[in-house]
Amino acid sequence: MKRCVKGLVTLVLLLVSAAVPARAGELQDDLAARRAAIMRQLAPEDILVLWSAPERVWSNDVNYEFRQDSNFYYLTAIDQPESILVLMPGNRERSAILFVSSADPTREHWNGHLLTAAEATAQSGIAAVQTTASFDAFMNNALAQPKARLMVVGPPPGLTGEPSAAYTFATKARERFLGLALGDATKLLFDARQIKTPYERRVMQESADISSEAHKAGMKAAHPGAWEYEVEAAIEFVYKKNGAFDWGYPSIVGSGPNATTLHYEKSTRQMKDGELLLVDAAAFYKYITVDITRTYPVNGTFTPAQRDIYDLVLQAQEEAMTVAKAGNRLADVHAKTVEVIKQGLLKLGLITDATGDQYRTWYTHSATHWIGMDVHDVGDSRKPLEPGMAFTIEPGIYIRDSALDNLPKTAANEAFIARVRPMVQKYKDIGVRIEDSFLLTETGLVRLSAKVPRTAEDVEAFMKAR
Amino acid sequence: MKRCVKGLVTLVLLLVSAAVPARAGELQDDLAARRAAIMRQLAPEDILVLWSAPERVWSNDVNYEFRQDSNFYYLTAIDQPESILVLMPGNRERSAILFVSSADPTREHWNGHLLTAAEATAQSGIAAVQTTASFDAFMNNALAQPKARLMVVGPPPGLTGEPSAAYTFATKARERFLGLALGDATKLLFDARQIKTPYERRVMQESADISSEAHKAGMKAAHPGAWEYEVEAAIEFVYKKNGAFDWGYPSIVGSGPNATTLHYEKSTRQMKDGELLLVDAAAFYKYITVDITRTYPVNGTFTPAQRDIYDLVLQAQEEAMTVAKAGNRLADVHAKTVEVIKQGLLKLGLITDATGDQYRTWYTHSATHWIGMDVHDVGDSRKPLEPGMAFTIEPGIYIRDSALDNLPKTAANEAFIARVRPMVQKYKDIGVRIEDSFLLTETGLVRLSAKVPRTAEDVEAFMKAR
Repeated sequence: MKRCVKGLVTLVLLLVSAAVPARAGELQDDLAARRAAIMRQLAPEDILVLWSAPERVWSNDVNYEFRQDSNFYYLTAIDQPESILVLMPGNRERSAILFVSSADPTREHWNGHLLTAAEATAQSGIAAVQTTASFDAFMNNALAQPKARLMVVGPPPGLTGEPSAAYTFATKARERFLGLALGDATKLLFDARQIKTPYERRVMQESADISSEAHKAGMKAAHPGAWEYEVEAAIEFVYKKNGAFDWGYPSIVGSGPNATTLHYEKSTRQMKDGELLLVDAAAFYKYITVDITRTYPVNGTFTPAQRDIYDLVLQAQEEAMTVAKAGNRLADVHAKTVEVIKQGLLKLGLITDATGDQYRTWYTHSATHWIGMDVHDVGDSRKPLEPGMAFTIEPGIYIRDSALDNLPKTAANEAFIARVRPMVQKYKDIGVRIEDSFLLTETGLVRLSAKVPRTAEDVEAFMKAR
Repeated sequence: MKRCVKGLVTLVLLLVSAAVPARAGELQDDLAARRAAIMRQLAPEDILVLWSAPERVWSNDVNYEFRQDSNFYYLTAIDQPESILVLMPGNRERSAILFVSSADPTREHWNGHLLTAAEATAQSGIAAVQTTASFDAFMNNALAQPKARLMVVGPPPGLTGEPSAAYTFATKARERFLGLALGDATKLLFDARQIKTPYERRVMQESADISSEAHKAGMKAAHPGAWEYEVEAAIEFVYKKNGAFDWGYPSIVGSGPNATTLHYEKSTRQMKDGELLLVDAAAFYKYITVDITRTYPVNGTFTPAQRDIYDLVLQAQEEAMTVAKAGNRLADVHAKTVEVIKQGLLKLGLITDATGDQYRTWYTHSATHWIGMDVHDVGDSRKPLEPGMAFTIEPGIYIRDSALDNLPKTAANEAFIARVRPMVQKYKDIGVRIEDSFLLTETGLVRLSAKVPRTAEDVEAFMKAR
């Protein structure tokens, strides 16, 4: 069964890898289709406005490197701050209007070129480009139209969150245009983004390929005595060298006990012989990220105890792959990992009861999430899987002494602790996560990260050959 | 004259390089001295409160890598969000109190270890550590004391800026404690940070050494046909590999015409034979950054036109170094670069009058700024230079066609344009900046970035030998 699925995955992967490079204008056509799809779901009088992301302060007068808002980029491919998109489905001549900063020679000599109108059109495929200076006057006119409804994209800040530019603008607009209807178009955008376009699918494979190469570079850099940050340096070098922005999420490079922290980001520890290294890392390439985790022995060879845990996690992932098919839900995929891991933990003596929630002591997170422009991408998890959806399968087991110490002091827990403590000592500080990124296509499941060694045998062979 | 200064710089550099590594506890002693120096300038009833930096959103649920607030780190060396420092000079038993997050096993399993009180004490040298949960009650008591004055650190947001945590708290405190006096301690902190401690001086040299190695790696990676991001990858790899956070400011890697943009950060262009590459980059190591720029020919050999500009910028920097001594001001250092560059531009036919501001068409920025925890570090530029001050000397010339096109259309400008246009064509798209980082010590000026080739001859020799 497993072998059969593997064969299918390989075949589909070859098809994807053989895809021709993007032709000129393909992205622009795709963007036009994305905008059209959104507009088909709006009323003719609706006015949907999206703002670019704010710049973020790193310290004093230095900003972090700019990262565009995902929804804005999804409809424009414009990677510049202080930009606004307006969609007006009822306007036949210019249903999309892009507002960008005015030319400013002094500012551009300091901070870099600003897109001209022609360049913004070429990049986004949007013919109507104006400067942001004209945005207020434009909206004054647009919002005064009969039946006008202002639509913005959230997500809604909720009662305690900081209102975004969109919500601040909506509030102000409603103060000035009495009776103006407001709407939140977040769900429209999220539903659209959940199904990847052919263009996005190809970029996702390219992004996964860069990340896969990076993981292999990390495996080459790991050895007893090396520092976690050296492995991180090797990984992120591959991102940058291939023109990726950098990471799709901060790299997790955790050795020894650090492997049992899910999002360990410090990377300041020196690795020791006999330890595992858990690396969870992926590039941000053309505004698409996948999500890949590998766990491998620093010295190249798993100990028997490490192997016990590793093979169980691998089995959970492999069986879950067979469930990841059209019509099923991500919850079904996760449930399969739970089923396998429960049985395995029971066998290893790390739980005493496979019917309840004891397994949660060691398997502490969900096995799946959507991927795309965001590493935890938007999407409705109640929907059955269908072609174009992309997600991870990432079971993990993390044996921490402290997990027992922190259990509520009930009689049942005391009994549990007494029985599993010896096995916890045996497997102590072993953290294993195996995470691959997948795309469901019309012909089956594609493992985008198939190029990184994954089985214990493949990992050991790779480490030996480096 | 120049040779003489060079000899001195080399000698002092050797002394610094021979410095022994930090002994255990040295940082903690230094931090205690920093806090004591600040407290000596406060009244006994003053209560100085500093907050850690906020976390910054990258996208959706992913944050940028955390960067501590410089002032907070300067007094604590605590690199953790949700932390607060209180200094109470009149309290003999505990004049410094540090508030940190409570232990939280679940959160720590997800996001990493939180400092225990003992660890926070070991790192900061502050004996009194409480959890942030007790901060409000603590302040309720402290602010109720007679003559209490609440001091916070800005900089002040001004009438249009967003109030920081400090200003928000101060406003709220004044609402609740009628008659509470408030004060801004920003100047105290900035004045202290302007004079580097012995510990900071040594870390600054280490930081400069990493950045210097990175620049040389970038020079090795540059060649006709290479992409700017490949050079950036090589540079930042050296940062990470040496345990630096990453950059002290986003890397500027600009080839050909991009070298004429001061803060070009995109790094997406392919380099061509015969072009210059301008690289302005430095690591952020132990919360200290320097600032280094080198400009070099992609193919290893300057053209005669490139050399004309390069040697002029170098001459301006060298002569400015002789002015960078105790008692002078940074403005004097800048003035010297202006004097040299004016004469040089006149000789090259790029200006027609060396008495006025024509040079500003091509030399568009200041030659100096303070360095330290921030790349544009805090400090009062009216103060005469004294030992412990650290700064850059970075003249630059940027020949852009558009600079002429954007001049106001006056008769004088038309005449100027007509006369210099042919020379602008000759030097078009040449951008050169040479920037070194300096520390003024008791024995003279130390060029922290002396390990990166700088003269045209040294640059060409290095490029040939790679």
